[in-house]
Amino acid sequence: MEHNLEYTISLLSHTPDTLNALLRNLPEEWTQRNEGENTWSSFDVVGHLVHGELTDWMPRARMILEHGESRTFEPFDRFAQERASKGKTLGQLLDEFESLRAEKLSELKALNLRSEDLAKRGRHPELGIVTLSQLLATWAVHDMTHLHQISRIMAHQYRHAVGPWSAYLGVLRCSSHGS
Amino acid sequence: MEHNLEYTISLLSHTPDTLNALLRNLPEEWTQRNEGENTWSSFDVVGHLVHGELTDWMPRARMILEHGESRTFEPFDRFAQERASKGKTLGQLLDEFESLRAEKLSELKALNLRSEDLAKRGRHPELGIVTLSQLLATWAVHDMTHLHQISRIMAHQYRHAVGPWSAYLGVLRCSSHGS
Repeated sequence: MEHNLEYTISLLSHTPDTLNALLRNLPEEWTQRNEGENTWSSFDVVGHLVHGELTDWMPRARMILEHGESRTFEPFDRFAQERASKGKTLGQLLDEFESLRAEKLSELKALNLRSEDLAKRGRHPELGIVTLSQLLATWAVHDMTHLHQISRIMAHQYRHAVGPWSAYLGVLRCSSHGS
Repeated sequence: MEHNLEYTISLLSHTPDTLNALLRNLPEEWTQRNEGENTWSSFDVVGHLVHGELTDWMPRARMILEHGESRTFEPFDRFAQERASKGKTLGQLLDEFESLRAEKLSELKALNLRSEDLAKRGRHPELGIVTLSQLLATWAVHDMTHLHQISRIMAHQYRHAVGPWSAYLGVLRCSSHGS
Protein backbone atom coordinates (compact mmCIF):
# COMPACT_ATOMS: atom_id res chain seq x y z
CA MET A 1 0.00 0.00 0.00
CA GLU A 2 1.00 3.63 -0.40
CA HIS A 3 2.25 5.66 2.49
CA ASN A 4 -0.57 6.94 4.70
CA LEU A 5 0.36 9.36 7.48
CA GLU A 6 -2.47 8.25 9.76
CA TYR A 7 -1.45 4.58 9.51
CA THR A 8 2.19 5.46 10.07
CA ILE A 9 1.42 7.42 13.23
CA SER A 10 -0.80 4.59 14.46
CA LEU A 11 1.92 1.98 14.04
CA LEU A 12 4.58 4.23 15.57
CA SER A 13 2.38 4.95 18.57
CA HIS A 14 2.03 1.22 19.36
CA THR A 15 5.72 0.39 19.57
CA PRO A 16 6.59 1.63 23.09
CA ASP A 17 3.81 -0.44 24.67
CA THR A 18 4.77 -3.42 22.53
CA LEU A 19 8.39 -3.35 23.67
CA ASN A 20 7.30 -2.76 27.22
CA ALA A 21 4.96 -5.76 27.18
CA LEU A 22 7.55 -7.96 25.52
CA LEU A 23 10.69 -7.05 27.47
CA ARG A 24 10.06 -5.34 30.82
CA ASN A 25 10.66 -7.64 33.80
CA LEU A 26 11.82 -10.56 31.68
CA PRO A 27 14.82 -12.40 33.13
CA GLU A 28 18.07 -10.79 31.91
CA GLU A 29 18.93 -14.11 30.27
CA TRP A 30 16.42 -13.10 27.58
CA THR A 31 17.17 -9.40 27.28
CA GLN A 32 20.94 -9.08 27.81
CA ARG A 33 22.17 -11.92 25.62
CA ASN A 34 22.98 -11.44 21.95
CA GLU A 35 23.52 -13.70 18.93
CA GLY A 36 27.32 -13.86 19.24
CA GLU A 37 30.29 -11.55 18.78
CA ASN A 38 29.47 -8.11 17.33
CA THR A 39 25.72 -8.61 17.56
CA TRP A 40 23.14 -6.81 19.68
CA SER A 41 21.10 -7.89 22.65
CA SER A 42 17.48 -6.71 23.01
CA PHE A 43 18.84 -4.16 25.52
CA ASP A 44 21.13 -2.80 22.78
CA VAL A 45 18.23 -2.62 20.32
CA VAL A 46 16.12 -0.51 22.69
CA GLY A 47 19.12 1.81 23.16
CA HIS A 48 19.38 2.10 19.38
CA LEU A 49 15.68 3.02 19.14
CA VAL A 50 16.14 5.73 21.80
CA HIS A 51 19.04 7.17 19.83
CA GLY A 52 16.97 7.16 16.62
CA GLU A 53 14.24 9.24 18.24
CA LEU A 54 16.82 11.79 19.35
CA THR A 55 18.87 12.14 16.19
CA ASP A 56 17.21 10.56 13.20
CA TRP A 57 13.53 10.74 12.34
CA MET A 58 12.11 14.09 13.37
CA PRO A 59 15.40 16.00 12.95
CA ARG A 60 15.57 14.69 9.37
CA ALA A 61 11.90 15.51 8.76
CA ARG A 62 12.54 19.10 9.85
CA MET A 63 15.63 19.31 7.67
CA ILE A 64 13.58 18.29 4.62
CA LEU A 65 10.90 20.86 5.42
CA GLU A 66 13.38 23.65 6.14
CA HIS A 67 16.22 22.99 3.72
CA GLY A 68 14.98 20.52 1.10
CA GLU A 69 17.75 18.99 -1.01
CA SER A 70 20.22 21.74 -0.16
CA ARG A 71 21.41 20.09 3.05
CA THR A 72 22.48 16.47 3.52
CA PHE A 73 21.24 14.57 6.61
CA GLU A 74 23.71 13.88 9.38
CA PRO A 75 24.76 10.22 9.04
CA PHE A 76 23.02 8.03 11.61
CA ASP A 77 25.44 6.58 14.15
CA ARG A 78 24.34 2.97 14.54
CA PHE A 79 26.68 2.39 17.45
CA ALA A 80 25.97 5.49 19.53
CA GLN A 81 23.78 3.54 21.96
CA GLU A 82 26.79 1.65 23.30
CA ARG A 83 27.90 4.90 24.91
CA ALA A 84 24.46 6.35 25.62
CA SER A 85 23.05 3.18 27.24
CA LYS A 86 26.01 2.58 29.55
CA GLY A 87 24.97 2.18 33.18
CA LYS A 88 21.25 2.27 32.41
CA THR A 89 18.74 -0.46 33.08
CA LEU A 90 16.44 -1.85 30.42
CA GLY A 91 13.54 -0.31 32.32
CA GLN A 92 15.13 3.13 32.07
CA LEU A 93 15.67 2.74 28.32
CA LEU A 94 12.06 1.61 27.83
CA ASP A 95 10.88 4.66 29.80
CA GLU A 96 13.08 6.97 27.73
CA PHE A 97 11.83 5.44 24.50
CA GLU A 98 8.20 5.79 25.54
CA SER A 99 8.52 9.45 26.47
CA LEU A 100 10.64 10.38 23.44
CA ARG A 101 8.30 8.62 21.03
CA ALA A 102 5.28 10.41 22.51
CA GLU A 103 7.08 13.76 22.26
CA LYS A 104 8.20 13.16 18.67
CA LEU A 105 4.74 12.04 17.54
CA SER A 106 3.27 15.20 19.08
CA GLU A 107 5.78 17.23 17.10
CA LEU A 108 4.89 15.32 13.94
CA LYS A 109 1.15 15.84 14.39
CA ALA A 110 1.68 19.54 15.13
CA LEU A 111 3.26 19.95 11.68
CA ASN A 112 -0.17 19.25 10.09
CA LEU A 113 1.52 17.83 7.03
CA ARG A 114 -0.40 18.00 3.75
CA SER A 115 0.26 15.77 0.75
CA GLU A 116 2.43 18.44 -0.89
CA ASP A 117 4.61 18.48 2.22
CA LEU A 118 4.98 14.69 2.13
CA ALA A 119 6.29 14.91 -1.43
CA LYS A 120 9.10 17.28 -0.39
CA ARG A 121 12.60 16.04 -1.00
CA GLY A 122 15.75 15.82 1.05
CA ARG A 123 19.24 14.46 0.59
CA HIS A 124 20.47 11.29 2.30
CA PRO A 125 24.27 10.95 2.61
CA GLU A 126 24.27 7.51 0.94
CA LEU A 127 20.89 7.04 -0.70
CA GLY A 128 20.65 10.43 -2.43
CA ILE A 129 17.25 12.05 -2.96
CA VAL A 130 14.45 10.80 -0.66
CA THR A 131 11.02 12.19 0.18
CA LEU A 132 9.49 13.09 3.52
CA SER A 133 6.86 10.42 2.83
CA GLN A 134 9.59 7.78 2.42
CA LEU A 135 11.30 8.97 5.61
CA LEU A 136 8.12 8.58 7.67
CA ALA A 137 7.30 5.16 6.18
CA THR A 138 10.85 4.11 7.01
CA TRP A 139 10.45 5.23 10.62
CA ALA A 140 7.55 2.75 10.95
CA VAL A 141 9.28 -0.10 9.11
CA HIS A 142 12.42 0.53 11.17
CA ASP A 143 10.35 -0.28 14.28
CA MET A 144 9.25 -3.53 12.61
CA THR A 145 12.79 -4.48 11.58
CA HIS A 146 13.89 -4.18 15.19
CA LEU A 147 10.90 -6.10 16.55
CA HIS A 148 11.81 -8.77 14.01
CA GLN A 149 15.38 -8.65 15.33
CA ILE A 150 14.38 -8.86 19.00
CA SER A 151 12.16 -11.91 18.38
CA ARG A 152 15.07 -13.53 16.57
CA ILE A 153 17.59 -12.70 19.32
CA MET A 154 15.34 -14.20 21.99
CA ALA A 155 14.57 -17.33 19.96
CA HIS A 156 18.31 -17.78 19.41
CA GLN A 157 18.84 -18.34 23.14
CA TYR A 158 16.76 -21.53 22.94
CA ARG A 159 18.11 -22.75 19.57
CA HIS A 160 19.50 -25.92 21.19
CA ALA A 161 16.80 -26.30 23.85
CA VAL A 162 14.08 -26.96 21.24
CA GLY A 163 15.85 -30.09 20.00
CA PRO A 164 14.46 -31.53 16.73
CA TRP A 165 11.72 -28.87 16.55
CA SER A 166 14.30 -26.40 15.24
CA ALA A 167 13.43 -27.74 11.77
CA TYR A 168 9.99 -26.13 12.05
CA LEU A 169 10.97 -22.82 13.63
CA GLY A 170 11.74 -20.37 10.85
CA VAL A 171 13.02 -17.70 13.21
CA LEU A 172 15.99 -19.95 14.03
CA ARG A 173 17.01 -19.96 10.38
CA CYS A 174 16.74 -16.19 9.99
CA SER A 175 19.96 -14.45 9.07
CA SER A 176 20.17 -10.81 10.02
CA HIS A 177 19.60 -9.78 6.37
CA GLY A 178 22.38 -7.26 6.87
CA SER A 179 20.15 -5.03 8.99
CA MET B 1 21.31 -21.55 27.11
CA GLU B 2 19.65 -24.69 28.39
CA HIS B 3 15.93 -24.92 28.88
CA ASN B 4 14.78 -23.26 32.11
CA LEU B 5 11.13 -23.68 33.06
CA GLU B 6 10.95 -20.37 34.91
CA TYR B 7 12.33 -18.45 31.91
CA THR B 8 9.99 -20.28 29.55
CA ILE B 9 6.93 -19.41 31.62
CA SER B 10 8.08 -15.81 31.88
CA LEU B 11 8.41 -15.43 28.10
CA LEU B 12 5.11 -17.23 27.44
CA SER B 13 3.30 -14.99 29.92
CA HIS B 14 4.43 -11.82 28.10
CA THR B 15 3.08 -12.72 24.66
CA PRO B 16 -0.64 -11.86 25.04
CA ASP B 17 0.14 -8.32 26.21
CA THR B 18 2.75 -7.96 23.48
CA LEU B 19 0.28 -8.89 20.72
CA ASN B 20 -2.36 -6.74 22.31
CA ALA B 21 -0.06 -3.70 22.41
CA LEU B 22 1.13 -4.30 18.88
CA LEU B 23 -2.12 -5.12 17.08
CA ARG B 24 -5.26 -4.03 18.92
CA ASN B 25 -6.93 -0.96 17.39
CA LEU B 26 -4.45 -0.71 14.54
CA PRO B 27 -6.08 0.11 11.17
CA GLU B 28 -7.13 -3.10 9.40
CA GLU B 29 -4.75 -2.19 6.59
CA TRP B 30 -2.00 -3.39 8.93
CA THR B 31 -3.65 -6.41 10.48
CA GLN B 32 -5.79 -7.94 7.71
CA ARG B 33 -3.30 -7.83 4.84
CA ASN B 34 -0.91 -10.66 4.09
CA GLU B 35 2.25 -11.14 2.04
CA GLY B 36 0.51 -12.49 -1.06
CA GLU B 37 -1.34 -15.62 -2.13
CA ASN B 38 -1.32 -18.47 0.40
CA THR B 39 0.24 -16.38 3.15
CA TRP B 40 -1.14 -15.23 6.46
CA SER B 41 -2.22 -11.85 7.78
CA SER B 42 -1.51 -10.91 11.39
CA PHE B 43 -5.17 -11.74 12.06
CA ASP B 44 -4.53 -15.29 10.75
CA VAL B 45 -1.43 -15.61 12.94
CA VAL B 46 -3.36 -14.74 16.11
CA GLY B 47 -5.98 -17.35 15.12
CA HIS B 48 -3.18 -19.89 14.72
CA LEU B 49 -1.85 -19.07 18.19
CA VAL B 50 -5.33 -19.54 19.68
CA HIS B 51 -5.57 -22.94 18.01
CA GLY B 52 -2.14 -23.93 19.35
CA GLU B 53 -3.21 -23.22 22.92
CA LEU B 54 -6.26 -25.43 22.48
CA THR B 55 -4.73 -28.41 20.73
CA ASP B 56 -0.98 -28.39 20.81
CA TRP B 57 1.16 -27.43 23.78
CA MET B 58 -0.52 -28.50 27.00
CA PRO B 59 -2.36 -31.48 25.44
CA ARG B 60 1.00 -32.77 24.19
CA ALA B 61 2.66 -32.11 27.56
CA ARG B 62 -0.03 -34.19 29.26
CA MET B 63 0.35 -36.94 26.69
CA ILE B 64 4.08 -37.16 27.43
CA LEU B 65 3.45 -37.29 31.18
CA GLU B 66 0.64 -39.85 30.92
CA HIS B 67 1.68 -42.05 28.01
CA GLY B 68 5.36 -41.39 27.28
CA GLU B 69 6.56 -42.76 23.97
CA SER B 70 3.67 -45.21 23.68
CA ARG B 71 1.32 -42.68 22.06
CA THR B 72 2.04 -40.40 19.11
CA PHE B 73 0.93 -36.75 19.29
CA GLU B 74 -2.04 -35.71 17.18
CA PRO B 75 -0.63 -33.88 14.16
CA PHE B 76 -1.02 -30.11 14.52
CA ASP B 77 -3.44 -28.65 11.98
CA ARG B 78 -1.74 -25.48 10.79
CA PHE B 79 -4.80 -24.36 8.83
CA ALA B 80 -7.50 -24.93 11.43
CA GLN B 81 -7.70 -21.24 12.28
CA GLU B 82 -9.21 -20.45 8.90
CA ARG B 83 -12.35 -22.20 10.07
CA ALA B 84 -12.15 -21.28 13.75
CA SER B 85 -11.47 -17.56 13.17
CA LYS B 86 -14.27 -17.04 10.68
CA GLY B 87 -16.59 -14.17 11.63
CA LYS B 88 -14.48 -13.12 14.59
CA THR B 89 -12.79 -9.76 15.07
CA LEU B 90 -9.12 -9.41 15.84
CA GLY B 91 -10.10 -8.08 19.27
CA GLN B 92 -12.02 -11.28 19.97
CA LEU B 93 -9.08 -13.45 18.94
CA LEU B 94 -6.71 -11.41 21.13
CA ASP B 95 -9.10 -11.82 24.07
CA GLU B 96 -9.34 -15.57 23.46
CA PHE B 97 -5.59 -15.90 23.24
CA GLU B 98 -5.07 -13.96 26.46
CA SER B 99 -7.51 -16.05 28.44
CA LEU B 100 -6.36 -19.38 26.99
CA ARG B 101 -2.69 -18.59 27.59
CA ALA B 102 -3.41 -17.64 31.22
CA GLU B 103 -5.39 -20.86 31.72
CA LYS B 104 -2.72 -23.05 30.10
CA LEU B 105 0.09 -21.46 32.12
CA SER B 106 -1.89 -22.08 35.32
CA GLU B 107 -2.21 -25.72 34.32
CA LEU B 108 1.51 -25.89 33.57
CA LYS B 109 2.47 -24.36 36.93
CA ALA B 110 0.09 -26.70 38.76
CA LEU B 111 2.01 -29.69 37.39
CA ASN B 112 5.00 -28.67 39.56
CA LEU B 113 7.37 -30.23 37.07
CA ARG B 114 10.72 -31.47 38.38
CA SER B 115 13.79 -32.00 36.24
CA GLU B 116 13.08 -35.72 35.93
CA ASP B 117 9.66 -34.85 34.48
CA LEU B 118 11.21 -32.46 31.98
CA ALA B 119 13.41 -35.29 30.70
CA LYS B 120 10.40 -37.49 29.92
CA ARG B 121 9.99 -38.52 26.34
CA GLY B 122 7.12 -38.54 23.88
CA ARG B 123 6.64 -39.35 20.23
CA HIS B 124 6.11 -36.72 17.55
CA PRO B 125 4.42 -37.93 14.33
CA GLU B 126 7.24 -36.58 12.14
CA LEU B 127 10.17 -35.76 14.43
CA GLY B 128 10.19 -38.98 16.45
CA ILE B 129 11.33 -38.95 20.07
CA VAL B 130 11.20 -35.55 21.79
CA THR B 131 11.34 -34.52 25.46
CA LEU B 132 8.92 -32.50 27.54
CA SER B 133 11.70 -29.96 28.02
CA GLN B 134 12.03 -29.57 24.23
CA LEU B 135 8.26 -29.23 23.86
CA LEU B 136 8.10 -26.39 26.40
CA ALA B 137 11.11 -24.57 24.89
CA THR B 138 9.41 -24.90 21.50
CA TRP B 139 6.21 -23.36 22.84
CA ALA B 140 8.21 -20.22 23.75
CA VAL B 141 10.19 -20.10 20.50
CA HIS B 142 6.96 -20.66 18.55
CA ASP B 143 5.68 -17.37 20.04
CA MET B 144 8.86 -15.66 18.85
CA THR B 145 8.64 -17.16 15.35
CA HIS B 146 5.16 -15.71 15.00
CA LEU B 147 6.14 -12.30 16.40
CA HIS B 148 8.94 -12.38 13.85
CA GLN B 149 6.35 -13.21 11.18
CA ILE B 150 3.92 -10.46 12.23
CA SER B 151 6.64 -7.79 12.17
CA ARG B 152 7.59 -9.01 8.69
CA ILE B 153 3.97 -9.04 7.42
CA MET B 154 3.41 -5.47 8.61
CA ALA B 155 6.71 -4.20 7.19
CA HIS B 156 5.78 -5.83 3.86
CA GLN B 157 2.81 -3.46 3.46
CA TYR B 158 5.22 -0.51 3.23
CA ARG B 159 7.88 -2.23 1.08
CA HIS B 160 7.37 0.29 -1.72
CA ALA B 161 6.52 3.28 0.50
CA VAL B 162 10.02 3.35 2.03
CA GLY B 163 11.64 3.98 -1.38
CA PRO B 164 15.44 3.65 -1.43
CA TRP B 165 15.58 2.91 2.32
CA SER B 166 14.49 -0.67 1.58
CA ALA B 167 18.21 -1.42 1.14
CA TYR B 168 18.72 -0.86 4.89
CA LEU B 169 15.63 -2.63 6.22
CA GLY B 170 16.48 -6.28 6.74
CA VAL B 171 12.92 -7.26 7.55
CA LEU B 172 11.99 -6.52 3.92
CA ARG B 173 14.49 -9.10 2.71
CA CYS B 174 13.32 -11.79 5.13
CA SER B 175 11.96 -14.90 3.49
CA SER B 176 9.54 -16.94 5.54
CA HIS B 177 12.25 -19.54 6.25
CA GLY B 178 9.62 -22.19 5.60
CA SER B 179 7.89 -21.43 8.91
